[in-house]
Amino acid sequence: MILINGEFKTHIEVSDRGFQYGDGLFETIAITNGQPAFLDRHLNRLQAGCNRLHIPFPNTKLLTFEAKNICQKADKGVLKIIVTRGSGGRGYRQPDNIKTNRVLSIHPFPDYPNAYKDQGIVARFCDTRLGLNPGLAGLKHLNRLEQVIARAEWNTTDIQEGIMLDINGHVIEGTMSNIFYVKNDILYTSSLSFSGVAGIMRGLIIAISSKLGFSTTEHTFTQDDLLLADEIFVCNSIIGIWPIKQIEKTHLSIGERTQQLQNTLINFQNEAYKGDL
Amino acid sequence: MILINGEFKTHIEVSDRGFQYGDGLFETIAITNGQPAFLDRHLNRLQAGCNRLHIPFPNTKLLTFEAKNICQKADKGVLKIIVTRGSGGRGYRQPDNIKTNRVLSIHPFPDYPNAYKDQGIVARFCDTRLGLNPGLAGLKHLNRLEQVIARAEWNTTDIQEGIMLDINGHVIEGTMSNIFYVKNDILYTSSLSFSGVAGIMRGLIIAISSKLGFSTTEHTFTQDDLLLADEIFVCNSIIGIWPIKQIEKTHLSIGERTQQLQNTLINFQNEAYKGDL
Repeated sequence: MILINGEFKTHIEVSDRGFQYGDGLFETIAITNGQPAFLDRHLNRLQAGCNRLHIPFPNTKLLTFEAKNICQKADKGVLKIIVTRGSGGRGYRQPDNIKTNRVLSIHPFPDYPNAYKDQGIVARFCDTRLGLNPGLAGLKHLNRLEQVIARAEWNTTDIQEGIMLDINGHVIEGTMSNIFYVKNDILYTSSLSFSGVAGIMRGLIIAISSKLGFSTTEHTFTQDDLLLADEIFVCNSIIGIWPIKQIEKTHLSIGERTQQLQNTLINFQNEAYKGDL
Repeated sequence: MILINGEFKTHIEVSDRGFQYGDGLFETIAITNGQPAFLDRHLNRLQAGCNRLHIPFPNTKLLTFEAKNICQKADKGVLKIIVTRGSGGRGYRQPDNIKTNRVLSIHPFPDYPNAYKDQGIVARFCDTRLGLNPGLAGLKHLNRLEQVIARAEWNTTDIQEGIMLDINGHVIEGTMSNIFYVKNDILYTSSLSFSGVAGIMRGLIIAISSKLGFSTTEHTFTQDDLLLADEIFVCNSIIGIWPIKQIEKTHLSIGERTQQLQNTLINFQNEAYKGDL
């Protein structure tokens, strides 16, 4: 099911700048019991992204209405919202009157085994490196070739996520997730000043962690630093938190902090689904 | 006029990976007298790009046929060819069976005054910096947010091009062009190992220049180096060569080398349009 500017359609104009240049942003949102989870947070990020790229933001009330409406029929699933700078000429110059296009689509919830959450996943390091681009870092924009190429590096089902470094060898994120690790009871995650997506779940984990009384240190760290961690996990809006039980040849057990965050998150999510956020 | 996989259409599937991730490549080709200029060179680059991104290349004969056919009715104009990894699921992982989508579209030729070619243009330095990404450098891929943002920096008609530096302060290219300069009778252009698009016109100029007996040095240089140049010009497949007569507060005259290249290029283009390439 796809809703383009309020109408059920399946196709977008070829002249849409999302198609021509990746000139837009997106959100990927879990649907549980017919409700888009953490919708306010997602729409806030989308609006902040639009502001940064100077794309007129479709109003929040309208997007909220459409999102809730389209999710109603899906008990469980994924809502993707794409916002682009609309249609406009050939050439990078944006039109004088930008008419933003908004595309909401519903997708099946991926059938990840519960074991990924409960017993952890196997991860690898990707060969594909993330570029450095402070102007776009943090944004969930439509220029995602790096992730596509990285995700094409492996095609076996025994590896669940690839961890990406930037061209300076700093660990940034997974192909579809953010990464955290615990060392000596301190929670660390990557600084996203030069690369990476500032995920909604990442933000939630930092907030939850703070409520639990331990702060998160955002910093730059290497592959070697990571492999010395006590606990590692990845997260996104769809998977929640997946502990890493093995990365390359390093084995880890699911730590106390990771489990505590997982449990708190589940309670937090249950609240959110009731519309308390 | 738009041809999608051989059929006249105006819309592309929302699930196309070009729209979802910018997962594709494009070519921008001048049409003169109903013929796409340097089509072989463009299709060769497109094929090389597809190989690098592991996108199955639609066969050359088919693309040549479609390109020549769609251009026939346009006396003068621009042909844009987009090739994407086709439609496929939500998520970065590419489908097992990739069905490449190809989109050919005809656009009006921009009405640039002859003075830009004959008397030169005014350029500025952009604030937007190009990221460093050796994995994607050189490719004319669909992830073009950097150029969109840079081109939005100015909206006056008295500036014709913005010159972009990378995050290390090296001059890379114009928002829609490659850049060359002449200093002490040596022709220089930017190294594109970390950023930038390896333009067809850039390649032609290097080839023509070599035929004329002077080689081109590809290297890294700064804004200050550039401002000490004897001659500067930008180029692309649509504009050919535009000399820069002013960049920020620095004024330049149109030099001998630039004019020689312009003249040789015109002859070369006339040959090309006759189908001799």
